[in-house]
Formats: sequence, structure tokens, C-alpha cells
Amino acid sequence: MALSNSKREVEESNNNNLGTAGEPNRNTNSPSISFSPVNLKKVPHLTDYLQLENLKIYTNPLDQNRFFHPSHGFYFSPSDVILRQIVYDLSSACEAFSDSDPRVHVAYHRAGPRKQIFFEPKNTRAAIVTCGGLCPGLNTVIRELVVGLWELYGVRQIFGIQAGYRGFYSTTRNPLVLNPKMVRGWHKLGGTVLETSRGGFDLHQIVDAIQTNAFNQVYIIGGDGTMRGAVEIFDEIQRRKLNVGVVGIPKTVDNDVGIIDRSFGFQTAVEMAQQAINAAHVEAESAVNGIGLVKLMGRSTGHIALHATLSSRDVDCCLIPEMEFYLEGKGGLFEFLDNRLKENGHAVLVVAEGAGQNMIPRTAAQTEERDESGNLVFLDVGSWLKTELKKWWARDHPGELFTVKYIDPTYMIRAVPANATDNLYCTLLAHSAIHGVMAGYTGFVSGPINGNYAYIPLEDVAQATNAVNTKDHKWAWVRTVTNQPDFVKS
Amino acid sequence: MALSNSKREVEESNNNNLGTAGEPNRNTNSPSISFSPVNLKKVPHLTDYLQLENLKIYTNPLDQNRFFHPSHGFYFSPSDVILRQIVYDLSSACEAFSDSDPRVHVAYHRAGPRKQIFFEPKNTRAAIVTCGGLCPGLNTVIRELVVGLWELYGVRQIFGIQAGYRGFYSTTRNPLVLNPKMVRGWHKLGGTVLETSRGGFDLHQIVDAIQTNAFNQVYIIGGDGTMRGAVEIFDEIQRRKLNVGVVGIPKTVDNDVGIIDRSFGFQTAVEMAQQAINAAHVEAESAVNGIGLVKLMGRSTGHIALHATLSSRDVDCCLIPEMEFYLEGKGGLFEFLDNRLKENGHAVLVVAEGAGQNMIPRTAAQTEERDESGNLVFLDVGSWLKTELKKWWARDHPGELFTVKYIDPTYMIRAVPANATDNLYCTLLAHSAIHGVMAGYTGFVSGPINGNYAYIPLEDVAQATNAVNTKDHKWAWVRTVTNQPDFVKS
Amino acid sequence: MALSNSKREVEESNNNNLGTAGEPNRNTNSPSISFSPVNLKKVPHLTDYLQLENLKIYTNPLDQNRFFHPSHGFYFSPSDVILRQIVYDLSSACEAFSDSDPRVHVAYHRAGPRKQIFFEPKNTRAAIVTCGGLCPGLNTVIRELVVGLWELYGVRQIFGIQAGYRGFYSTTRNPLVLNPKMVRGWHKLGGTVLETSRGGFDLHQIVDAIQTNAFNQVYIIGGDGTMRGAVEIFDEIQRRKLNVGVVGIPKTVDNDVGIIDRSFGFQTAVEMAQQAINAAHVEAESAVNGIGLVKLMGRSTGHIALHATLSSRDVDCCLIPEMEFYLEGKGGLFEFLDNRLKENGHAVLVVAEGAGQNMIPRTAAQTEERDESGNLVFLDVGSWLKTELKKWWARDHPGELFTVKYIDPTYMIRAVPANATDNLYCTLLAHSAIHGVMAGYTGFVSGPINGNYAYIPLEDVAQATNAVNTKDHKWAWVRTVTNQPDFVKS
Amino acid sequence: MALSNSKREVEESNNNNLGTAGEPNRNTNSPSISFSPVNLKKVPHLTDYLQLENLKIYTNPLDQNRFFHPSHGFYFSPSDVILRQIVYDLSSACEAFSDSDPRVHVAYHRAGPRKQIFFEPKNTRAAIVTCGGLCPGLNTVIRELVVGLWELYGVRQIFGIQAGYRGFYSTTRNPLVLNPKMVRGWHKLGGTVLETSRGGFDLHQIVDAIQTNAFNQVYIIGGDGTMRGAVEIFDEIQRRKLNVGVVGIPKTVDNDVGIIDRSFGFQTAVEMAQQAINAAHVEAESAVNGIGLVKLMGRSTGHIALHATLSSRDVDCCLIPEMEFYLEGKGGLFEFLDNRLKENGHAVLVVAEGAGQNMIPRTAAQTEERDESGNLVFLDVGSWLKTELKKWWARDHPGELFTVKYIDPTYMIRAVPANATDNLYCTLLAHSAIHGVMAGYTGFVSGPINGNYAYIPLEDVAQATNAVNTKDHKWAWVRTVTNQPDFVKS
Repeated sequence: MALSNSKREVEESNNNNLGTAGEPNRNTNSPSISFSPVNLKKVPHLTDYLQLENLKIYTNPLDQNRFFHPSHGFYFSPSDVILRQIVYDLSSACEAFSDSDPRVHVAYHRAGPRKQIFFEPKNTRAAIVTCGGLCPGLNTVIRELVVGLWELYGVRQIFGIQAGYRGFYSTTRNPLVLNPKMVRGWHKLGGTVLETSRGGFDLHQIVDAIQTNAFNQVYIIGGDGTMRGAVEIFDEIQRRKLNVGVVGIPKTVDNDVGIIDRSFGFQTAVEMAQQAINAAHVEAESAVNGIGLVKLMGRSTGHIALHATLSSRDVDCCLIPEMEFYLEGKGGLFEFLDNRLKENGHAVLVVAEGAGQNMIPRTAAQTEERDESGNLVFLDVGSWLKTELKKWWARDHPGELFTVKYIDPTYMIRAVPANATDNLYCTLLAHSAIHGVMAGYTGFVSGPINGNYAYIPLEDVAQATNAVNTKDHKWAWVRTVTNQPDFVKS
Repeated sequence: MALSNSKREVEESNNNNLGTAGEPNRNTNSPSISFSPVNLKKVPHLTDYLQLENLKIYTNPLDQNRFFHPSHGFYFSPSDVILRQIVYDLSSACEAFSDSDPRVHVAYHRAGPRKQIFFEPKNTRAAIVTCGGLCPGLNTVIRELVVGLWELYGVRQIFGIQAGYRGFYSTTRNPLVLNPKMVRGWHKLGGTVLETSRGGFDLHQIVDAIQTNAFNQVYIIGGDGTMRGAVEIFDEIQRRKLNVGVVGIPKTVDNDVGIIDRSFGFQTAVEMAQQAINAAHVEAESAVNGIGLVKLMGRSTGHIALHATLSSRDVDCCLIPEMEFYLEGKGGLFEFLDNRLKENGHAVLVVAEGAGQNMIPRTAAQTEERDESGNLVFLDVGSWLKTELKKWWARDHPGELFTVKYIDPTYMIRAVPANATDNLYCTLLAHSAIHGVMAGYTGFVSGPINGNYAYIPLEDVAQATNAVNTKDHKWAWVRTVTNQPDFVKS
Repeated sequence: MALSNSKREVEESNNNNLGTAGEPNRNTNSPSISFSPVNLKKVPHLTDYLQLENLKIYTNPLDQNRFFHPSHGFYFSPSDVILRQIVYDLSSACEAFSDSDPRVHVAYHRAGPRKQIFFEPKNTRAAIVTCGGLCPGLNTVIRELVVGLWELYGVRQIFGIQAGYRGFYSTTRNPLVLNPKMVRGWHKLGGTVLETSRGGFDLHQIVDAIQTNAFNQVYIIGGDGTMRGAVEIFDEIQRRKLNVGVVGIPKTVDNDVGIIDRSFGFQTAVEMAQQAINAAHVEAESAVNGIGLVKLMGRSTGHIALHATLSSRDVDCCLIPEMEFYLEGKGGLFEFLDNRLKENGHAVLVVAEGAGQNMIPRTAAQTEERDESGNLVFLDVGSWLKTELKKWWARDHPGELFTVKYIDPTYMIRAVPANATDNLYCTLLAHSAIHGVMAGYTGFVSGPINGNYAYIPLEDVAQATNAVNTKDHKWAWVRTVTNQPDFVKS
Repeated sequence: MALSNSKREVEESNNNNLGTAGEPNRNTNSPSISFSPVNLKKVPHLTDYLQLENLKIYTNPLDQNRFFHPSHGFYFSPSDVILRQIVYDLSSACEAFSDSDPRVHVAYHRAGPRKQIFFEPKNTRAAIVTCGGLCPGLNTVIRELVVGLWELYGVRQIFGIQAGYRGFYSTTRNPLVLNPKMVRGWHKLGGTVLETSRGGFDLHQIVDAIQTNAFNQVYIIGGDGTMRGAVEIFDEIQRRKLNVGVVGIPKTVDNDVGIIDRSFGFQTAVEMAQQAINAAHVEAESAVNGIGLVKLMGRSTGHIALHATLSSRDVDCCLIPEMEFYLEGKGGLFEFLDNRLKENGHAVLVVAEGAGQNMIPRTAAQTEERDESGNLVFLDVGSWLKTELKKWWARDHPGELFTVKYIDPTYMIRAVPANATDNLYCTLLAHSAIHGVMAGYTGFVSGPINGNYAYIPLEDVAQATNAVNTKDHKWAWVRTVTNQPDFVKS
């Protein structure tokens, strides 16, 4: 069989190449990868639960756009797919194709305009809502949803739900009527003009409001909790057999959502974090035995901290939730810092907010306290580290000068407008979401996979996480760049 | 055979899904992609032309790094590959596998540290040279080559060749001795501390100098001309059977190099271009019938112009070399601008420097004049457009107020330091280049493919170009975002 | 007489101190300055030409402000003055008091709220107009006029005249109704939301429109031409005996207006110019014999060029209109640059747009061409210099590498929003203008003199210029900072 | 007598003008100000305590500068003075001249080059030290001292004392040898390359070190504590009759130093504070009943908070140490915020770190704790306010959404490089200090008074403070700009 043959060839060629001392690191010749069948991730569609006789199909109005002439290849079809896994170890291809590796074979539908759509623009009523904390690019997504629906599809009834999920059923805050003129400069504003809030999720009130307001497209922008809410809304809409498309746009400055390449606002956050790191570096350098300590966003993942560290090159050590660390003893943080201070006279430390949570002593109250999602409240790892550092120095270097400057730039990072990269990303994100909803897809998320925009089942995204895999090839060697301790006790 | 079967399945399932009016846009079930064999792009290696008895193999010193313990999966092997093509049209899979599609089957070696290396750090003498025009990130690449060689591999003899290729054999400018302390803050400086120049390529003098100076690793950073020079150097080194690794690091702010995802400095350029577009927008808005005109870099490709336009959302029309346009008549630029001025009172135009070159009248002298590479000199499309716009208005709207403000921000864009995204990119680029050279690869380029760093034959990169494909699915729908004319005469 | 006595004392004490070799540079003891009478610059007032019986006086509504309680010293009276001259040479006090020195004795009324006002807020109709080119801070001034009139005085009828003077009588553009909500974020926008244009000054149409629209307060923001127009409007309003207050707010990014300390937007321009100079510096440094050349705004004065040079410290030579320079020969620019290139390998040149105009050869057409104000058109000194530099090098250093990078950042500088310093300045400028108009002053300008806001007759400002005095003590020593040639042939 | 006559005239003219209801606010005619004698502030000079026979006088080497020809008026003489008081109330001129008004008559020597100097460049050994906290511009001052001494006066022995006062006598840190090449790009770096520290003042060790190292010029950059130390050093140097010039350069980002117009770094701090205020504004706007709270530097004075507030225009209320405020009841902060939240849905609060210190409850420990200067430690007014706001809302609006986002940007503000305005300021500051020391002045400070650089006795500056005078005319009306409560209980 072709598959096993090709695998064998790979193994053999590798054996040949690596097994001989005289020919290490040589290239393999003509290996093969076969995979069959492709696991194409099905995206829910209105036709899944609605009778066809109740659905009308229209030609995409882009066909009549006065500015361009859709050429061959302009529209996507369901057979346009994108592969999720793109790196392979040819020598271990067997394992790679086992059922236990969920990444193998997986493909997603590509995002983009479809030739036929399921909504008549003049009868389309779209609702947009933002939930949870701020993230650079929120306003760009809103703006582009409005501009895209209006300019490309001719939709004229677009509404902004105010202040999060509770805005659907709020008695004091009516949906805002949105149009391109109104949202014109929003992509240059931080925050969300629609306002946001946490909580307020009341499934039945929300779906009732969707019905009452006759919304037939709902764009939900928010974090993982919000996405889980969106799944419930989608399920309830199916149950009620409503002709309503639901799309989720994951918003997490931490970049902790899975499947997609990265979340919007992340690049801006990494860029803005440089300012804080620069300041910490300057403070540390200008002092005698100065330590600059910066806490960056990242409750469950250290992406911002890691990227900001790699971008900055002024950071001596970066602590993230995915990596255990310890303070005292050989290979510990204190020993490392001691060496750096001796060598350079200063050091810069970046810590993700979720790092070291299990090391910080909790008061009785803190052991009880839970956040809105029922998790233990986060303790301020920055303040704790600052205190521990001072105690350590006073104990080990009594009388010697020492300074720790602690910077928490969280709000100054997340409240800025998106940078150019994120603005472009948010724009394509919004437009691809529109194309999908218009084409009748629902209960989905739009996002980039390996650089191409795809449609992904909402439920998959709501469950996926995106941790820094410290064992992964790439991250392993990336870690060498910083030359910081790996806190592996040897 | 598995291949044809799977293809047939795809076609069938697509036929089923798309052929029925009642079920358009539905998902396909269990389609297959099979491809065999993989076309793994061979990267030249020292062992290709040197006798094994003359080569020594060493254990990677990262094994003894005092900061971390290489875990399983830390080192890459030649069987770690990355696929180049990741999007497929399942319905036309047959064509996709034809020989005429060079993207199919192609895989590249992943970049990263190898367990065995071919250079003894204490005897390694590395030379770094920058050629051609400025690009954000040049200094970061240099810095990281120095830091990576020094910190990770313990190399202590690192030299900066000054002022481009001619610096190899210059009698007045000796190679600079580089070390981590010296390059410490370079990643925050624009330009190149090593200085650069165009031309000066003298193959034999350069390779002689490499021999005289006993350099055994040569890092060449430059544009397409420079890369072609690097190929010649590599060929000559092979011919002379020198134990010298040669690696190219493509530098093109225009992003016109093929195969790799994008070139360094590009994101920074797009970010900086926003300033110019903002200024043009403000000038246009504040005037009566105001037009803001911005010329952006891009001689053969419009990537910067296109990305800057999509990021900005304030641009009415973006002209790039890959797309023909015309001024007069129905569907022309003047008609479009006329409408925009009537609607909004102002308009913003972005033009890539290579756009419309064949439309600008050339003087006899300009018809003769060639640049250093023998191409016709570029004419200033911005000045020409400004003049044409003024003539048009004076002719069609005599007596009415009209303003064109023309901005050429080229040097203010390319002379800035890299932003965070590009700094990270340059860092990984430099480190992956080092790992490759150390492992004995030569005549190669390191760069990201679908988000993962890979090794690519230098020759392939030197020949590849990266135009904006205006017919490509993705770019086609992206074009709708701007809602600008497509200049297709209907 | 006291005056002559005191003067004599000064002279004597100075003679004593300076005449003895043994006691140079000693302090003088108890010298005197007497001046009498003070020349207090009269600001026109509505009562100058209107009968008192036609004017009503009201208590300043700030008295009833719900937020604060005007304390003693809150209101200014006409006797609150500010001195213009503050530096004296005690040894030459005699001359200083001669009639020929216009600076001596001069005092101005301080700006600020008056206890009694001449406009009833509910009947006040204010018009705001912006004329001429862009300048950072324009929108802040507009915003603050609106907010100040509305919040502090309770004025509810505020209008924005569109697109400059012609907007008063335009048939297509009606005055915009302005209120605080509308102007809320304007201070963060570059340009002028009211739009602007040059020319369009038609005295009678304008004053007719003022009457027709029943405007009784007119705020005119513009350059020197605009201010001269404002004088005419004020004169005509007096002639017609209209109860209309007219105030001018000088706008000149060049800082070429006299009497006041500096014009708004100037600091922002100097700040933004750093970007261009940095880019020029990077380009120059990264090349072999690289010259970075930046043209900055300043037609008749070199303030921006000079301040940008002193702020940057990367500039080798700064050429301004107030200082003659020459290219060839001893002490010339070429000799200077030759030395700098030999010493440093690069040089940066800043040139104000008005510098060297008489050195640039004019074509016959250019000798005839006049701008809207009847002056010879300006030629591009930057392009000319670039050409001359290249010719010089080719002649004197044939075959040697040489690069000139020329940057003209004009629009990128003037189209940005005001920085914090200018925003504060514009805010106080607008508020002090409001207080003055409300108090019945008219035909005046408000602006800072020696750091304090004052009221100045409009006519005086329209005539005053503000050149860099290269012979002045302060500027003389400031010139030493740059260590550049003074182009005085010795 | 002229004086009484002139005063009477003023009073009479004012009586005339203001006494008649029909002619209020009119201009006075020909009033007079006479003052005699001038109180010219003596600056200490080497000749005050050293015998002339021991002092040599040299011609200023600027006379031989190869770049310019000192023209008439280039050098300053001791008779060049600047007046301190420039605003007068003509109606109360009598009081103004009373002895109790210290501002009257006061004049200072102007700063700038003198024709004769007291140090031979080749024998000059200059020491530069930075003490206390960071401030934007520190490195510019250092750089310009080096460049000015080297380029203008030909001094070749310039030393940087490391890490503050203790660096004079440190056994581990030798003085750094400084030269123009070394300090080249320092003005673009935040912090201080020389490092700094608090405390470490040991008078005798310091002066001993000055003697041991044969320093004859000492440039001391630091805050008020540092300036008081500098006075002691100057006194001790006089006592020991050392031929050593001592100059202080006040560094206080808070702008709390008296006499001079403003301190360096202040404008940069106000600019940077905008970022924090913007973030707070965005967070507040994007929430339901959102409050953004920003703490800015300013222990004893609210200059940064006040200027940042006036520059931003997004701040609803600014609390500074110079103004009492209260939370509860009519006219209190809570009532004000309640109204703002009702009107706008959000509010932004800026608080200087020294505001409300007496309102924050102190623990027993905090009541005892003193800082290095013996003052009660500062409590974090921001955290306290945040807590109080939350308590208030929970009490008065139970169940309603409410958010307070607290931002403390201190280190991110003070660690940045100086902006253009401050870079220029620092440059002139350093150069004027050099000219003064070279001319034999000692125990002085150089700084701008009414926009012109002057020499001021060090002792005066060490004692002067610069509070925001909330009763002053100017600040009174400036307060109206923000329309915030004055917390005066009526």
C-alpha cells in the first residue's frame, strides 16, 4: 500500500542518512506523506435545521458591485479547504497518522464570499455585541462589520448592542443604529464604542430579544466565556428553529484561544509591552543592582510575555504559567539574578500574570474567593515577586544597594487602538465573518489558520486552548534565544 | 490506486453537494488528499563537495548550556519538514497534482538546532555583511547573529564587513570585530551600523578575501541582487572546495521575495506608512476637494501599498504594479475620484512606486537611462499623478477649488528601527540561520514558511518573486474590502 | 532727576567692576532701572465706537458657576499688565530708553475673565473660521472656543464657518452648528474639521454675512494674511457701528508672528521634525559619505529649523533665511561638509524652505511667477541643494561613493494633532480670547508674552514679524551649540 | 518724587476708568512703573574667596573658534540682567514695591559666554554626577556638558561620577572617562548612563575626593536634597579655599523647584502622562459607570497633574496637593462624580501622588515610618481612592454596574528619553552652566527665568519651592477651564 510504502521509505532514508557517522544531517530523498481521508471540519449551516422550502437563496450582490467584476476564482466553494497540520516528522509518520493525533488530516473551509447567499440584504437585521475586557482592535471589528455589511452586501439595518450580553435585554439601553458614517474613525479608537461588561448572560432573555428585535444575524465578540455563551445561544436558536445566523469572533488579548493562528489585538499588546519593558530596563540600568520587573497579561498562557521578551531582547528572564519555576537554590531565580547583577549590574524580569500562582501564599479569604467564573482569584504575582526579591537581597546582601521597580502596564496596553497589523487582521476577520453568515453558515468562528482565513465550528473554538508548548520543537529552540534558566532541577 | 480513488471521492462528493440546487454550500464529507512522493527541497551541505575525512563533527554545545537541559524534541533532524502548499480545492485536486503546479508536494527542512555540528566554535570565524538599501530590522539581524553565535555556540571571532560587498576587499575599511557588548542596543537603531552600499560585487576579490581572512561562515544580508551575488559566492566556494558555510538573509522592505511568508521590515514599513496616509487624509479632509496622494515603496510589487491601505481604511484607491489602471473614461481613476469628491469632499490615493510606469511619458534621456541592474530607471509616479490630477481638474472643473497634497515618506519609513513584530522575526531569522550553518548547511536561506522557520536553497530564493496575485481567491476578496475600482473595462 | 541718577549709578558701578583688571566679571551692586511712563498698549473696545446707551453690561456668569466660587483675585482688571521687555543691559540703560527702542516701556493687558461682560450669553451668536494652511492645534482651538463659550458663559449659538473666509458667504456651505458633544474628541485630530482654504477674502460679502447671520462674536484663526483681513473686517465693523467683537488667533506653524512668545503648533512641529532628522541621520550614517538633507517649514524665518536642530543634536549644519550662506570656497558649505565627511563619514543638513532663495537660479517663468500674495514663488531649496551637492562631489571626488538622501516631511509634520504642550497652549489661547471678547474687547489678539497671556491690538500683530535675530545675545551663543560655520567671510 | 507721582497717576487713571459704571474695562493711559534700586541677585564667584594673584584669567577660546567669528554682542557682561517680575497690577503699584513683596526689583545675571574665563582648558578637570530618581533629559544634560566642554572650550578631562554622591568616594566604581564619541547618542536614552542613587552624601569624603582627583569643575545634577548637598559642598570648598567651580542643575520631574520657569523633563512627563490618561479614558468610556483613575507624579506640587489635565481635556477632575478636597456631601467628589456618571456614563480622575495625604488613614506603622529625608512616608492615594470609590458606589448604588480602573504610570513616564522641547532645554541648560563655571561663577544654578537663561545663587534655588498658587490670577482662571469643583464649602 502506498501509505506504508512511503512511510517505510522515509524511515529507511532516515536510517541511512543518520545511521552512518559519515553522512549525518543529510537530506532525505523523495519521501512521501499520504493521508486519507481528510477530516474536513463541518461548519453548521442554516440548512442543517431549517427546511429548504423556508430558505431563499440569492445571488451574492457583489456580482453587481459597481466597482469590480468578480473574475474566475473570486468566489469560494465548500471544496476550498485549508490544512491544519503543516509540519511533519517524516521519520515518525506512522504515529502522526494515528487516531490519537487530532491534528492529522484536519482541514477547514476557507473563508470568503460565496456565490449564493441566504439573506436578502434589505431584510437583513444584524446585531453586534462586545463582551468582557478590552482588547486592541475591538472597534475595528465593529467598524468593519458595519462597513462590510453596508458597502458590500447593501445591508441597512445594523445595530450595536450596548454594554455586553445584558444589552440585549436591557430596559435602559436600546440598540444603537449603526452606519458607515457613524463608525468612520472608530478603528483609531481604543476600547469599544459599544461599551462592554462581564457577565449578564441570560440565555432566554437574549434569544427572546433576538426574536423581538427580529435580528437574523448576530455577531458576538468576546473571550472564552463569551464564546461558550454564544454556543448556548446558537443551540437555543436551533432549538427554536430561528432563521438566524450566529458567528463568534474570539477576542482575547492573551492569545489563549486555540486552533486559530493568533487572536486580534495580540500583536498590538506585544508592541505596547515594549514600552513597559524599556522603562523597566532603563530604571534597572540607571540604578545600582537594579531590577526591573514587568507584569504582562496572560492568565493561563504566557504568549504576550514570551513574545514581548523575544521582541525586546532586554529581558533577562521571562516567567510564564506554562513553565514551573523556583526561587531558591541551584538553578533557581535568585541564583540566576545574582549572576546577572554581578555581570551586568542590572536585570529585567517579565512575568505573566498567571505565572507562579501556586507559589504565592493565600490568605484564608483568598483561598475562598472565586471570580465570576468560579475560579480562584488571581493573586498579584508582581507584587509578590517584588517582596520576595527584596527579602532575598536583604538576607543575602545586607547593606548593599538594591532596587526593584515594578511596572504593571495592563490597562495602558489593552486600551490602545490596534496597530496596522491588527487593524488589517480585524478587517479581514470581520469581512470573512460577514461572508460566512451571508452564505448561511452559523454557529461558527472565522479566523486565520496557517495564514489563511477559515471557518471553524464555534463549539470547537469555545473548547480549544492555546498554551505555550515548552516541549515543542519550535518553542524549545526559541527558548534558547533568551538564554534564561529552564528551572529544571538536574 | 489510492490517489485516484481519493480524488474521485472528492469530485463526487463535491458534485453531490454542489449539483443540487437544494443543498448548496454544504460541507463535503470525508474527502481525501493524497500526495506521493513529497518533493523535499534539498539544501546544499558541506558534505556535498567536501570529503568526509576533511570534516569534523562536533556535539552541539547547547548540550552543555548552563541554562537549560535539551529535552526530547529539542533538536531537529532532517526528517522534520514543513509543507509549502496548505490550501486546496478538493474539487480540482487532479489539477493540483499536475506537474505544472510547482507548489504541490513541496516540503522544506525545518530550521532549528541540530544535535551535531560541523564547526568547532573556537575555530569558527564568522563574517556578516549588509548590502543594498536600508530596511527596518537590519541591525537586529546583525545583533542576533553576533549574540547567537557568541552565547549559544561560544563563537568568539565575529566580524562585520563594512559598507557592503566592497567591504570584503576594501583597503580602507577593515572588518569590525563584533561582540555582544558592542551590539547591545543595536536592535533599537534604524539603518545598519555596518554601513551598506550598492554594487561593489567582485566575485574573486570577495572569495579571496574570505580565504585570506579565514572566514568559515559568511552571513549575507541583502536584496535580490545581493542574493544572486551570494549564489555566485557559494558556487565559487564550492569550486575552490572551501570549508565555508554561506547563508543568505533576504532583505527587501517591499516583500517581493518569494517562497518565504514575508521579508523582515515589511510589517514595520506598513506600520510607518500609516503616518503618511494619516497626514494625507488630514490634508485632504481639511481642504475643499482635497486629494491626499501617498507614494509607498514597491517597485515590482504592491505589498506595502496594499497592506497599508487595508490597515488604514482611510484610503479610497490603491494602485499597484500588479494591476493595470487608467485615468480617463468610464471606470477610470478620474471618474472614480470625481464621485468620491462629490460624496465625501475628499479622497486619499496610495500608489506603489512601480505602478503605472508604462503610462508615464519618458523623455529621450529617460528612455536611455538604466539603473545599476540595467533596467529602465523608475520615474516618479507620484509627481506624474499629481500633475495629471491637476490638469484633469482644471479641464473638467475650471474655477473650482482643488488641492492635491503629495507625500513621499520613503526614507522616513525605511530608516526606522524594527517594531516588536519585526524584531522578533529578525531574531528568529538570525538564530535559525546560525543553527543551519553550524549544522553544515550552506548555500541556503532561512525563512518562515506558513509560520514555521525553514531552510531553503539560496538559488531558489534568488530566483523567486512574490507578486500580489490579483486573481488569487484571497486577494480577490480582499480587494472588495476597499471597494475601489478594478479598472477592468467592461 | 531719578532717571539720570540711576542710569549714572549703573554706568559707574559697571565702570568700576569691569574697568579694573583685577575684578572682572563681578556683580554690580544696587543698580536701578526706571521707566516712566509705561506705554500700555491700548486694546480696542466696543465702547470706543458704540454709544454706551446701546451697550448693556452683565455680570460674568462665572460668578454663578456651580463648580467654583470666584475668590479674590479671580477677575482681572484693566490695570493688570505684563511687561514686554525683561532683559536689560544695565550699562547701556540710557540707550535702552530712547524712543527708537520700541520694546522699552511697553506693557499689555493681561488676559483672563473680567467681572463685567458686554454680551448676554443667550443672545450671543459666535462664529469661528479657520483660514490658510494646516497647523497642529487648529482643532483644539476650535474645540476650546466651543467648550469655553458653552460651559463657562452659557453661550448656545456657536457656528463653524466652513472652508475659510469664503465660507461666510458661500451659497453651498452653511455654517455648522457646533456644541461640546460634537467637538468632543476634535483636539486629537490633525487638520481642521471646519476645513480651510486660502484666499476668498471679500470684505463686504463677509461683513454682510456677519450681519445677516446676526453673529456678534467672530473668532478668526489664520496666518498673517488672514490677520490683515481680520483688521479690515474689524475696521468695517467699526464703520458700520456693529456690536460685534472680533478676535484674531494667529496661526503660523513657522512661528513667524511677532510680539507673542510663540505660535501654536510650533512645538509639535519641532517634535515631529525629529523623525525626519532621525531618518536623515540613519540614512547618512548607513552609507559611505552619506548626507542626509531635510527641508523644514519656514519661509521667512528659520525657527522650526533652528529649534529642530538644537533639539536633535544630530544635525551638522542648519541653514535659515535669516543667515546668508555660500557653497564654495573657504568657510563655505562644501568645505565644511568635506571636513565632516572626513571626520565622521556622514553629515546631516537641515534647511528652512526660505533659505538661500536668492542663490537658486530662476527660469524666466519662475522670475515672473507670483503667489497669491504677489510674492515671487518659492523654489525648492532642498532639491537645488541636493543637485549642487552631487555636482560638487562628482567634481571634487570623482569615483568616490557618495549619497544624498533628501527628505521633505512638511505635510507629515503639519497634519498631526497637537502634542500635550500645544494642546495646553491652544486651550488657554482659546479661553483667553473668549474672556476678552466677552469683556467687550475687539480688534485684538490673545497670546502669551513672557509666559503670560495678554491682549494685543490686532493691528500690531498683523504687522509684526518674528525673525531669528542672529546678532542677539541669546541666539549668538545658541549658535555656538551646533558648532556650525557662520558663513562670515573673514 | 517721581515714584509717588507715577503711582498716583496709576491709581487715578484706574479710579477714572473703573469708577464709572458706564466705562468699565477701559484701558488706562500712560501709567508708570518705577523701581529703584534693582535688587540684582549676586552670584558667588571664585574671586569672592580666592586671592586674585592665585587666579589666572584667559581669553575665551570661542574667540578662536574655527567655525564662527564672535560678533558685537556675542559675549555677555555682568550688566546683562533679566527681571524676575513681569506682571503688575498698576492700581496697586504701591504695595507692589513694598519690602514685603520679594518679587519686586529682583534681577538676575543672564547666562551665556563671557569674554574672559578663569580656567585654562588643558588644565580643567570636570566631574559630572547625577543623584536621586530618574527624570527625562538626564542623559542629555550629561551629553551636552561633555560636548560643550570639549567642543567649545577644548576641555579634554571630563569624568562621570557613577551612581550618585557615593560615587565620588566609592572604592569599586571609578570615575568614567567621558568624551564626545562616547556620549554621542545618549540624548536618545532614558535614565542616566552614569547611574544614580539616593543618599550617600558624605561631605568630607566627597570634597576629599574632589581634591584627590584634582577636579576643578563639579557639575551636580539632582533634586532638592541634592541641591542642599551641593550648597554644603560649595561651602566646604570655599572653606578649604579650593579653586573649584560648583554648579547645580536642578532635576525634578515634578517641577517643584522655585525661581526657574520649569525644570527639565517636565514637559516630557506631561506628554507621556497623556498615554495613561487616554488609557484611563478609554477604559472608563468602554464600561458602564466606568471611572478611570490615574496617579501622576507630584509629591508636594501638582504641576504634572494640572498640566496633564489641561493638555488632555478628557479629565473630569484633577486633585493636587495644593488644594484640599473632600469626598462626601455637597460639593464633594462623590457628588460630582455621581453627576458626571449620570451625564456621560463615565469619568476620569487624575490625582497627584501628594494629594489627600492627610485624608488617608495610617496604620500605626505608617505613622512611624519615615523616608530617608525624615518625612512621613507617602501613602498610595490612588489605591486608597479606588477603594473609597468602590465603597461609596456599593453603598449608594447597590447592584448597579461600576468599574474603577487605576493606572500608575510613574516609571513609564520618568524613564523615557526627553522629547524635543526638553532636549533643547537640557542642551541650553548644560551650555549655560558651562559658560558660567568657565567665567568663574560658582555655587550657582543656571536656569530659565521668563524664557531667558540666568545664573541664580545655588542657595536660593535649594530653598525655593514652586507650588501651584490656586489663588493666583492665572491659575484661578485656568481652573475654570476644567470646570471641576473647587471643593470650597459654601
